[in-house]
Amino acid sequence: MSATSHRPSVTRRFLLAARPVGLPKESDFKLVEAPLPAPEAGQVLVKTVYLSVDPYMRGRITGVRTYADPVHVGDLMVGGTVGQVIESRDPSLQPGDYVAGYWGWQDHAVAPAAGLQKLNPQLAPVSTALGVLGMPGMTAYFGFLEICHPKAGETVVVSGAAGAVGSLVGQIAKIQDCRVIGIAGGDDKIKYIVSDLGFDGAFNYKTTSDYVASLKELCPKGIDCYFDNVGGAISDSVFALLNPFARVSVCGQISQYNLEAPELGPRLLAQILVRQLKVEGFIVTRFLERWQQGVAQMAQWMKEGRIKYHEDIVEGFEKTPRAFIDMLEGKNTGKMLVKA
Amino acid sequence: MSATSHRPSVTRRFLLAARPVGLPKESDFKLVEAPLPAPEAGQVLVKTVYLSVDPYMRGRITGVRTYADPVHVGDLMVGGTVGQVIESRDPSLQPGDYVAGYWGWQDHAVAPAAGLQKLNPQLAPVSTALGVLGMPGMTAYFGFLEICHPKAGETVVVSGAAGAVGSLVGQIAKIQDCRVIGIAGGDDKIKYIVSDLGFDGAFNYKTTSDYVASLKELCPKGIDCYFDNVGGAISDSVFALLNPFARVSVCGQISQYNLEAPELGPRLLAQILVRQLKVEGFIVTRFLERWQQGVAQMAQWMKEGRIKYHEDIVEGFEKTPRAFIDMLEGKNTGKMLVKA
Repeated sequence: MSATSHRPSVTRRFLLAARPVGLPKESDFKLVEAPLPAPEAGQVLVKTVYLSVDPYMRGRITGVRTYADPVHVGDLMVGGTVGQVIESRDPSLQPGDYVAGYWGWQDHAVAPAAGLQKLNPQLAPVSTALGVLGMPGMTAYFGFLEICHPKAGETVVVSGAAGAVGSLVGQIAKIQDCRVIGIAGGDDKIKYIVSDLGFDGAFNYKTTSDYVASLKELCPKGIDCYFDNVGGAISDSVFALLNPFARVSVCGQISQYNLEAPELGPRLLAQILVRQLKVEGFIVTRFLERWQQGVAQMAQWMKEGRIKYHEDIVEGFEKTPRAFIDMLEGKNTGKMLVKA
Repeated sequence: MSATSHRPSVTRRFLLAARPVGLPKESDFKLVEAPLPAPEAGQVLVKTVYLSVDPYMRGRITGVRTYADPVHVGDLMVGGTVGQVIESRDPSLQPGDYVAGYWGWQDHAVAPAAGLQKLNPQLAPVSTALGVLGMPGMTAYFGFLEICHPKAGETVVVSGAAGAVGSLVGQIAKIQDCRVIGIAGGDDKIKYIVSDLGFDGAFNYKTTSDYVASLKELCPKGIDCYFDNVGGAISDSVFALLNPFARVSVCGQISQYNLEAPELGPRLLAQILVRQLKVEGFIVTRFLERWQQGVAQMAQWMKEGRIKYHEDIVEGFEKTPRAFIDMLEGKNTGKMLVKA
């Protein structure tokens, strides 16, 4: 084994220090050092290159079991990661190899090689394994196509449209020959999704007082598919304009994640009834068996120039909590990453 | 043509007199007489035998276009009907024949024979064409099986469980080997669905303070399918206990129909997301092409004693508005009908 003499003896980790109340604070996380053991047979030692910060993590630190066990106070924060192998005790990986995994908010880790995905830096930048070719990309691909079943000519609305997932959903919808309208929070984001990504229209919910009026103007034939990343008042306005037999893919509810008490809203079941809507929530892991098919299609579309992506990269491992909080506040355009 | 000498010269009709505010009042309907013309070629003159009063009618008199044009003030009230042919100018029907149709709240009508369904009183009581073998029966059959996709061993909850539709849904779910729990408003209704219809459990929401606690006790494995006739707080409690990948068929929202202002409620999209729920509304007309298949299956199950039904029959055409209001207040068990 090479480079054992350079093996660091500790890893830096962010633990959950307190359950956030409302919007998380940096003090809800605690940076600690932990001993870094030598890899055993079948394991590798990796140095973190990129960390992913994603909306779903807010749900994991609430202390409520949702679709996965919660992160408890004192636990290492979970999260998708990309790193470089420093030392390997598995024949499938060599020092220098890039891998994607899920070793959480730490700058080094010892992990089983079997749980890592070897990346080819010649095919795509390794960071894309956390974005367009990773969980957010597959969330957009399967969550939109398999739940909304868009047809050519239909009108698709995407909330959180400039985010890691929403920006891809809109482009996939354009590939399906749909009319695509985005909702996002910032004029720069609106410009990005319309001018750079080819959305047919968009509005900035932060400077728009009447969402329904804006949507009516942008969607003269009503709305057939809604890909929802945000929930709350934005979704209420979209529901008001859904056509009979419209499909709603519920991917995220970021507007609700940091509320200190659950918010009331207009009841939606009566609308679901009279317009025969289909509303379905999903977690991307349900599509795991078909993951490679999705990655291959997204990579092909990228190669053809039909799918573009943007990364908002924060430099410095120690800024991971800040990047996470900024992402929850919608400060990113495209995929928010931390470069360790 | 026989019996023309006995042809009545007028029909009595209920017109919509005013748009109801909240729960309809009898004075929202007006009884008038209208001339009854002789049937022309292709038409028949029918005498109404049974009138159907159904929850959906509340939506038709709100003045808001939902899935069908609203009934305007001054219009004849719509509704399903069964009658006997008095005079026929179409070879397909003879005087004395029983027919089902949609000629609304009137005691006689002239109608095109092509729009009527000839009934065989030897096969089933003609009133069943408005219930178990008619719109409510097909609503239960298709709306439950095609939207909930129940699997043997799953737990099914039905709200409005003693009503025309709910009482059938529960029995269909039992035929699918599901555990079936009903929610209804009255101890007599609870006794009916459990003792007579074979529901596995039920509770009276009018005498239960904690719906979630009652449901937890009755559904120890959570809820996989929910057939919703009522909405509101009852549905909120069911949603709280839905299992991952549960299916919700939204058939009715009777708790909301008579509200003078829309009610707020807990937002459901976050629950739909994390538990990957599928929530779909439907109007039974979407299944029109397969109607005869549904009628044949329900008739077969009735013959086998696996589907029972109950009719609450109000005597007297002039009591139709009262029967409608009583049904909206949940005073019926099973199908509410008026015998003209």
